[in-house]
Amino acid sequence: MEIALKRSILIPSNELYSPVAGFYDYGPVGKALKRKLEEYWRDFFLRKDGYFEIETVYVLPEVVLKASGHLSCFGDPVVGCTKCGKKFRADHLLEEKGKRCEGAKPEELNNKIKENNIRCPECGGPLGEVGWFNLMFKTNIGPIEGTTGYIRPETAQGIFLDFQRVFRSHGSKLPMGIAQIGKSFRNEISPRQGLVRLREFSQMELEYFFNPNSPTHPKFKRVEKEKFRIYSREEQKKGTDNCIELTAREAVERKIVPNEIMAYFMGREMQFYLKLGIPYDALRFRHMLPEETPHYSGGNIDLEVKTSVGWVEVIGNAYRTDYDLKSHSKSSGKDLSVSLEDGGKVMPHVVEPSFGVDRTILCMLEHCYRKGGDAERRDWEWFDFPAFLSPFEAAVLPLMKKDGLAEKATELADSLREKGFDVLYDETGSIGKRYARQDEIGTPYCITIDYDTLKEGTVTIRFRNDGKQTREKIDKLEEKLHSFIKGNVLCLP
Amino acid sequence: MEIALKRSILIPSNELYSPVAGFYDYGPVGKALKRKLEEYWRDFFLRKDGYFEIETVYVLPEVVLKASGHLSCFGDPVVGCTKCGKKFRADHLLEEKGKRCEGAKPEELNNKIKENNIRCPECGGPLGEVGWFNLMFKTNIGPIEGTTGYIRPETAQGIFLDFQRVFRSHGSKLPMGIAQIGKSFRNEISPRQGLVRLREFSQMELEYFFNPNSPTHPKFKRVEKEKFRIYSREEQKKGTDNCIELTAREAVERKIVPNEIMAYFMGREMQFYLKLGIPYDALRFRHMLPEETPHYSGGNIDLEVKTSVGWVEVIGNAYRTDYDLKSHSKSSGKDLSVSLEDGGKVMPHVVEPSFGVDRTILCMLEHCYRKGGDAERRDWEWFDFPAFLSPFEAAVLPLMKKDGLAEKATELADSLREKGFDVLYDETGSIGKRYARQDEIGTPYCITIDYDTLKEGTVTIRFRNDGKQTREKIDKLEEKLHSFIKGNVLCLP
Repeated sequence: MEIALKRSILIPSNELYSPVAGFYDYGPVGKALKRKLEEYWRDFFLRKDGYFEIETVYVLPEVVLKASGHLSCFGDPVVGCTKCGKKFRADHLLEEKGKRCEGAKPEELNNKIKENNIRCPECGGPLGEVGWFNLMFKTNIGPIEGTTGYIRPETAQGIFLDFQRVFRSHGSKLPMGIAQIGKSFRNEISPRQGLVRLREFSQMELEYFFNPNSPTHPKFKRVEKEKFRIYSREEQKKGTDNCIELTAREAVERKIVPNEIMAYFMGREMQFYLKLGIPYDALRFRHMLPEETPHYSGGNIDLEVKTSVGWVEVIGNAYRTDYDLKSHSKSSGKDLSVSLEDGGKVMPHVVEPSFGVDRTILCMLEHCYRKGGDAERRDWEWFDFPAFLSPFEAAVLPLMKKDGLAEKATELADSLREKGFDVLYDETGSIGKRYARQDEIGTPYCITIDYDTLKEGTVTIRFRNDGKQTREKIDKLEEKLHSFIKGNVLCLP
Repeated sequence: MEIALKRSILIPSNELYSPVAGFYDYGPVGKALKRKLEEYWRDFFLRKDGYFEIETVYVLPEVVLKASGHLSCFGDPVVGCTKCGKKFRADHLLEEKGKRCEGAKPEELNNKIKENNIRCPECGGPLGEVGWFNLMFKTNIGPIEGTTGYIRPETAQGIFLDFQRVFRSHGSKLPMGIAQIGKSFRNEISPRQGLVRLREFSQMELEYFFNPNSPTHPKFKRVEKEKFRIYSREEQKKGTDNCIELTAREAVERKIVPNEIMAYFMGREMQFYLKLGIPYDALRFRHMLPEETPHYSGGNIDLEVKTSVGWVEVIGNAYRTDYDLKSHSKSSGKDLSVSLEDGGKVMPHVVEPSFGVDRTILCMLEHCYRKGGDAERRDWEWFDFPAFLSPFEAAVLPLMKKDGLAEKATELADSLREKGFDVLYDETGSIGKRYARQDEIGTPYCITIDYDTLKEGTVTIRFRNDGKQTREKIDKLEEKLHSFIKGNVLCLP
């Protein structure tokens, strides 16, 4: 996090004034990483499987969020101190005292607070009654009269609203996957833990619409042997950290995963996070407890990543059944069921993998961070991002500014940019310091222009992960870089 | 627009309920087009010139928008009917009567309404006093107490807020370009004209920070001979539609364009819009009138595109001087000036090209739309998008579903997707109808699987723009498609 702030990977929003908790900006390095992560997700989960991506609006009228249930259910329990007036999350106060209270209603929380004689953590005063606060940002559509609206709390609702049109104009056949990448907003009472709990965050959500009479995935066979660790309800209740290891197929057979569709996505999710550089042992699927699972759900399983602040949910996999389409059918009076090829109609069911982008980036920053080298470079720090996800693929560095080296380096940087590479140019400070700066933002290849460049048309390529160098002809550089990136070559071959 | 709705290029937001004016979603085809347009912009304007992209938050606290001037100046004049109570844009009522009133203050509008005896267009009743309504969506940060916030009215402010950090962590040297692609929000009183005036829209904004003592661009020479049409202030005042044609250099010499930096961007903008398929004669730069130009501005010039609803602004080029950095310095008490290499400090100046994404898409849909073919296909309709911007690059179509053709086609579609192509698969309806459906969404290449595919391993490739076909080996297909896309080959070669 220190490097992340120092190198403007992240920037606290509105920092010039007093930053407001729960908001972060992405600086050039962070944005490049985020863009590449989203593009990789799009390729991995959408393009390869032929699913559709859409983009829906952020500001939704109240009627939509009433239908989706967010107006009544999307909130947090809050309790105030009757002495100092400070407000707190009622469930957090209980959890800090080691009391579990997932899914408890305000009344139950009230009782627990009294039973356990919990008092204000600030002044020790007595606490009042637990209230319920909706976490959506409220606004008004139309500046004069208009209608009440909210900034969307998830990207998924837009997909349900547009499902019928997309379905009809793209073949009218189940199964169909429709996805959205974008921001969502939760007006948290007290945001904490940096990127873990933001008021404004990015999601990548995929809704897989299928006929409930054939809850299978055409490509399930390709991942059925993929292994992953499951943190079962039993182990959670025992309070241990033990996981069982199962294949995707076994997880379905043991009825932990509700169907082959969710198991397919779980297998793919494992493949994806391993590619991002998260180690296998830092990944686990947590079977959500019954009290954490919505009443309509056919099963909820989170992918969690181990971090310095504990296990963090990065994906929520939810078998939402036909809840959303049914709710919108009912509220709008429009039948959202679809015709089947063999006659009859069905309300499609939905399995939803919902990815948190910011949390995934946080996990990458933690797990790709490396420190320590040989004796000379004991404090060497770098991000071991895979080459294809590195924010910048190469940096071009003139050994000196003088003697035409800077001009030659600028020319090379421009020519690589013309070819589509993300390239930085840096001429400030010693070459060692410049290498160190590139390591700190995970640039895999530093290309140095020196006097031999002018004489022989060659440059050195330095590899991020071992600091070693090779000399190459400039006219081979494009081809070399492509092959290094493709092969994820991060040390001198 | 009819095709756009029919094929879910665009979807009216919240259509299941009553759609709220000023909001549109992008369906799969529209989103793919938008994504490719944004990626092309990123490559053309940022990567090639080594500028930085950042991502800043949507919800801003009031203090930021007070400093930026949006709290006091970002509004519209409104007048109500004293009889029926309906509200109207005061300036629109005057414009509809042929009265010009750009930049007029509420008091001036009041006088003009009285002078011209303008009455309620609905009931004919007398109008009240003109008021001023702020167009930002207001909300509250923190669901309990918290602070007043607004959804951002432009992406630019985030760039000014983060300028100092980005500058320091990326070389501390002017000039520097920092950009953002994202949504902005204007709570319009009465949105109109589909994509032209949205309440929620996407922008691509670039802030070019430079030393005001050297207002030049290192690459100006590359575009100085680029020609464009300028709609001068004189011609606007005369009320004609005449443009003068100048090169970028001439426009600077004649002092229409304030400096070489803005002229550089104008040259690049021309190149960009021509590549999108907008014809030269449908493009003009309008020199904003003095009353449309903010007091701090060093010059404002819009790029406009001719459409069926008139000339539409797609880019605002503004020489914002040091207005924004100075305002934030003053309000935050933090000095945002920067040190120069040769000593001394300077408050950077800014030239800002601000692109409207949705309007650009609207213009592409209008200008790339084609209708009419040979006698047999008189009603043939297609979008003549350049191949590299087409939402889907290819469609794979089995001639029949039976005899293993569908399986073979699915396999081919999957294999092209694995290679990174955006591919649709369609097996429903006659082959002619399927070609027509692809033409309607601008897919340049239809690949048909027939009995010869099974026998000889060949497929037909049909070209969108002439409907003609060629036969190719499957194992040459990837290479062929790459070369067609690269060469923008849209008819049988």
